[in-house]
Amino acid sequence: MALRFLSARLAQQIDDELMSASGAFSLDQLMELAGLACAQTVSAVFGPKKYNRVLVCCGPGNQGGDGLVAARHLAMFGYKPTIYMPKPGSKDIYQRLHTQCKNLDIPTLQGDGDAAATLRNALGASDVILDAIFGFSFKGPIRAPFDTAMPLLSASGLPIVSVDIPSGWDVEEGNKDGVGLQPDVLVSLTAPKEGVRAFKGRHFLGGRFVPRTLEERHKLNLPPYPGHEQIVDITEIVQKL
Amino acid sequence: MALRFLSARLAQQIDDELMSASGAFSLDQLMELAGLACAQTVSAVFGPKKYNRVLVCCGPGNQGGDGLVAARHLAMFGYKPTIYMPKPGSKDIYQRLHTQCKNLDIPTLQGDGDAAATLRNALGASDVILDAIFGFSFKGPIRAPFDTAMPLLSASGLPIVSVDIPSGWDVEEGNKDGVGLQPDVLVSLTAPKEGVRAFKGRHFLGGRFVPRTLEERHKLNLPPYPGHEQIVDITEIVQKL
Repeated sequence: MALRFLSARLAQQIDDELMSASGAFSLDQLMELAGLACAQTVSAVFGPKKYNRVLVCCGPGNQGGDGLVAARHLAMFGYKPTIYMPKPGSKDIYQRLHTQCKNLDIPTLQGDGDAAATLRNALGASDVILDAIFGFSFKGPIRAPFDTAMPLLSASGLPIVSVDIPSGWDVEEGNKDGVGLQPDVLVSLTAPKEGVRAFKGRHFLGGRFVPRTLEERHKLNLPPYPGHEQIVDITEIVQKL
Repeated sequence: MALRFLSARLAQQIDDELMSASGAFSLDQLMELAGLACAQTVSAVFGPKKYNRVLVCCGPGNQGGDGLVAARHLAMFGYKPTIYMPKPGSKDIYQRLHTQCKNLDIPTLQGDGDAAATLRNALGASDVILDAIFGFSFKGPIRAPFDTAMPLLSASGLPIVSVDIPSGWDVEEGNKDGVGLQPDVLVSLTAPKEGVRAFKGRHFLGGRFVPRTLEERHKLNLPPYPGHEQIVDITEIVQKL
């Protein structure tokens, strides 16, 4: 019984089930645990001494919310995160999560003026990128301002940790257009998605909140997490599949 | 600059500040992180092999909510929690948290029939108690059904992990009436309270979400947390004070 890779439809269905009346999770809860898992993944691979400055790139959807939560936890872990969020989502939760970051003195890049130059400067002053731009509901093409931003992230040569699905990849077909980021590390949330089957880098799983009944109903075959950790390294499991 | 012990008033004020418009935290978020810290404390001291069966005792307030979150995480960590919650809180969040536990097949003791006998039987089938009955807003005397339940918990001889303030203790004056539980382990949330200054057992701090500005404003002098952990062992720090 192998670890299951999720289609876009099943990923959405699982999220819906978790947050339904019977699943009873709130978005606040799931985003908190997902963002914590992302921060722990950065911490597990890129220690805070050598990789202190994390550029947390947030998209306008739930993935961006995970990024904001991760930025806050990274600051608590002793990192110096900076937020790049050129198109803030409109949901109230994103504003609250952003306020929490501001209260920790986490700076956000300002979009006025030459946005590309600002991002380039920020990349020059960063040690690692946390990519929380697009999630499993992404459908191309990549629109402004991310169409110009993503090549800059790639060109920076910085290590990239992607959340759930590398930005620009199709959730089922992977980096078919070749325009996606090439992360060094991936943290899949809940379960890995079809599109990352061929991902060769370091691969973690986060989202330790899936009830056994839901896991069995969808035959997810999730691996056990160690101790009280919120992430589990699935690099070898994925490579053997 | 020593770790600060909080008065009831300051503990309430810090909670209020965290959840104010400027603090921007939701109760869902804080309870998730607090409950996770409680579960991690149980896990840090009482491993899941020898202490598999955890009786999670929940009061009707926010402390009980922390207990429900902890029960869920303990189940995810491989423990077999059972919930004792004879007076469920009425807030919607407690019902959601309880549903999440039911979805993990975590049983809840039924209050009908001989409640004392039911509790006694459950204690006989438990390895450790997580005490999330009363929090820092507790004012005696202890009312039914906890007036009969708490002596049973004490008489069980099981190790007890208390959340924030041992149940029955005054938040500022400690176990002055001698009716409180005597825990082996305490997990203080946000910062320790005045009443536990003289607590001699194993002592952890959880609630790794206090912004530096809030910490400095109230001169909390919190110790650093290790790595990406959600708890820090403050036993030695407290004993040296």
